[in-house]
Amino acid sequence: MAEKINVSILGSTGSIGAQALDLIARFPERFSVTALAAGSRLDDFIGQVKRFRPQVAALAREDLLPSLRAACDPLGIEALAGEEGLIRVGTHPPADRILCAIVGAAGLRPTLAAIQSGKTIALANKETLVMAGELMLREAEKNNALILPVDSEHSALHQCLRGERREEVRRLILTASGGPFRKSTLEEMEAALPEQALRHPTWEMGPKVTIDSATLMNKGLEILEAHHLFGIESARIQVLLHPQSLVHSMVEMRDGSVICQMGTADMRGPIQYALTYPDRWDSPFQGLDLVARAPLEFFAPDPHRFPCLELATRALQAGGTAPVALNAANEVAVAAFLQGKARFLDIPRTIEKVLGEHDPAPADSLATILHADENSRRRAEQILMKGVAA
Amino acid sequence: MAEKINVSILGSTGSIGAQALDLIARFPERFSVTALAAGSRLDDFIGQVKRFRPQVAALAREDLLPSLRAACDPLGIEALAGEEGLIRVGTHPPADRILCAIVGAAGLRPTLAAIQSGKTIALANKETLVMAGELMLREAEKNNALILPVDSEHSALHQCLRGERREEVRRLILTASGGPFRKSTLEEMEAALPEQALRHPTWEMGPKVTIDSATLMNKGLEILEAHHLFGIESARIQVLLHPQSLVHSMVEMRDGSVICQMGTADMRGPIQYALTYPDRWDSPFQGLDLVARAPLEFFAPDPHRFPCLELATRALQAGGTAPVALNAANEVAVAAFLQGKARFLDIPRTIEKVLGEHDPAPADSLATILHADENSRRRAEQILMKGVAA
Repeated sequence: MAEKINVSILGSTGSIGAQALDLIARFPERFSVTALAAGSRLDDFIGQVKRFRPQVAALAREDLLPSLRAACDPLGIEALAGEEGLIRVGTHPPADRILCAIVGAAGLRPTLAAIQSGKTIALANKETLVMAGELMLREAEKNNALILPVDSEHSALHQCLRGERREEVRRLILTASGGPFRKSTLEEMEAALPEQALRHPTWEMGPKVTIDSATLMNKGLEILEAHHLFGIESARIQVLLHPQSLVHSMVEMRDGSVICQMGTADMRGPIQYALTYPDRWDSPFQGLDLVARAPLEFFAPDPHRFPCLELATRALQAGGTAPVALNAANEVAVAAFLQGKARFLDIPRTIEKVLGEHDPAPADSLATILHADENSRRRAEQILMKGVAA
Repeated sequence: MAEKINVSILGSTGSIGAQALDLIARFPERFSVTALAAGSRLDDFIGQVKRFRPQVAALAREDLLPSLRAACDPLGIEALAGEEGLIRVGTHPPADRILCAIVGAAGLRPTLAAIQSGKTIALANKETLVMAGELMLREAEKNNALILPVDSEHSALHQCLRGERREEVRRLILTASGGPFRKSTLEEMEAALPEQALRHPTWEMGPKVTIDSATLMNKGLEILEAHHLFGIESARIQVLLHPQSLVHSMVEMRDGSVICQMGTADMRGPIQYALTYPDRWDSPFQGLDLVARAPLEFFAPDPHRFPCLELATRALQAGGTAPVALNAANEVAVAAFLQGKARFLDIPRTIEKVLGEHDPAPADSLATILHADENSRRRAEQILMKGVAA
């Protein structure tokens, strides 16, 4: 019997963190939980701590520390809080693998610390690569940290590239469901309401990500991530709409051969892959029934109806903090749309304005990156307040 | 610049051999042709010899040796004939890689000799694995010869398995176009004429192989080949009908992830892969346009209309010379069908009778294998002469 894999989780009460713990619970002989961190869901978190018995447990919200302590002390578990607590969880020495699954910019510092500790990182925090890709990859290389993507598309690319050489790749092909507006006209998209945009055809996700997949900004952000993870320039990263969401992504090699990875639309697949790589373990879940799920369709996205793809490529090419501005403007505009304060197509319009005005600085420190993030959010809010068309 | 790859070809005037030479001609700086062998197409062969200037050239037909010599002597090329000549081509020491593309049982001895010389084998002769899989694999292991498949399905499986571990494979999924009778009723198949069976929807191939793909015996034989090449038992090798012939095969891993390989229906892809592996070189041919070629369909084959699949599995499980009997009966029955001497469904009926009567011997020498082949052919002819239903 091999040694157990010791896992620490940053963001254990979120969707990815909770699914990871569900998987870990199915392999009690092969995983152990070293450290856990979450944001503010105290009761859920205490439940996890009692069940999985980590050595360290931390909550982002400092005012919850006394309650956390009360639960941890009797179990001999060290309780911490605040960003320092999260960083302790991300760097706790006995862990073999850190699942970085804090949502948003709050995940940046703990993830950077985990990378700097030279661990194997199962990366589910998108901002790490979208906002700080160059910095994070540089630190990963310097500290010999392996970054494994936890997200169906990049996990698929990682699997397609096993045994392949990067210099023999012709292009990466990210697949997108196309979201609820795949067949809508520009006029219908202009008039779209939040409840229409939230009707995702294949994946169940939170509202922000669901809107991103309606604008295709999710794929725009994934182009940025794929660029950093696999070292392929944006001109060689293509997006195809694939409404069935079974082919999670593809790699075309220089000899014309296309390798693709398929699976059910279940995040536990990519999570398990990132926790067990280079091994593959038996899946406790239902496999793919290709006959029942076929036919598989593929379409080219319409750049006029989905300008977010081109905006993301533009930000990547501008470099430095431009992707930070893109991401910040998108978050602000999506929030405004969900609150009924902006129209659906105001999302790309806001991003285009913010990006057009943004003067990119080298993204070589978290301070610079967070500063650009804050400025771009403020600018996006101003633009939306005045009305995007103004 | 890397050293050139020295290639010898057994069967250079056949379809695979000629396509390989076409590819080799496109990379004059990277390939050289060491030795060539063909059957009896003297003029074509002399044209190839003059163009590619191998060190050794051999024809199977001994009576053509004087004409071959007349062409080779002025060029300083050694001319040979007969099985000994073919074996010399297959074992000529300067070659790095031998393409074994002689069609039929005639390819067995030269391929065995090439394997025993410890070379890297690009294997296009189906009989090598179908009739003598165990023997060939044992010799390959003993002599440290690497066998690379030249055939779109097994090349696809080989590519899907790059970087994967065999013990983590759940099942292999071979795709089949389904042939011209995919949607036909049993009555229509009973009445099918050779010209209907020869109308293959996606691949252009010779008549024998085209009939095999109408009965699905081609997939039956490929199950045998995949079993030997990848060491997976038949219960874990599945066949799916995929009329578009773009997904060339798939591998399902134990964690439920499915890796598949796609490409255009062009044999030059798998030929180039087997000649350059582990490298991939630029393809001079048109890539796959997935958007234009989608949707991709997948169906389970109907065992009642396509009994050849089950017959192949039965032969593999019986072991020894049983696959030899299967293959021999199939060849005889297909030839009879093409000559209008048997009905389409007499093909599986003949195979079933021959296989049912066959008493498998250990397939541990070519002599035993060829003896079983001859006996089974004779038995199939007798059965067909009397009428299969008799």
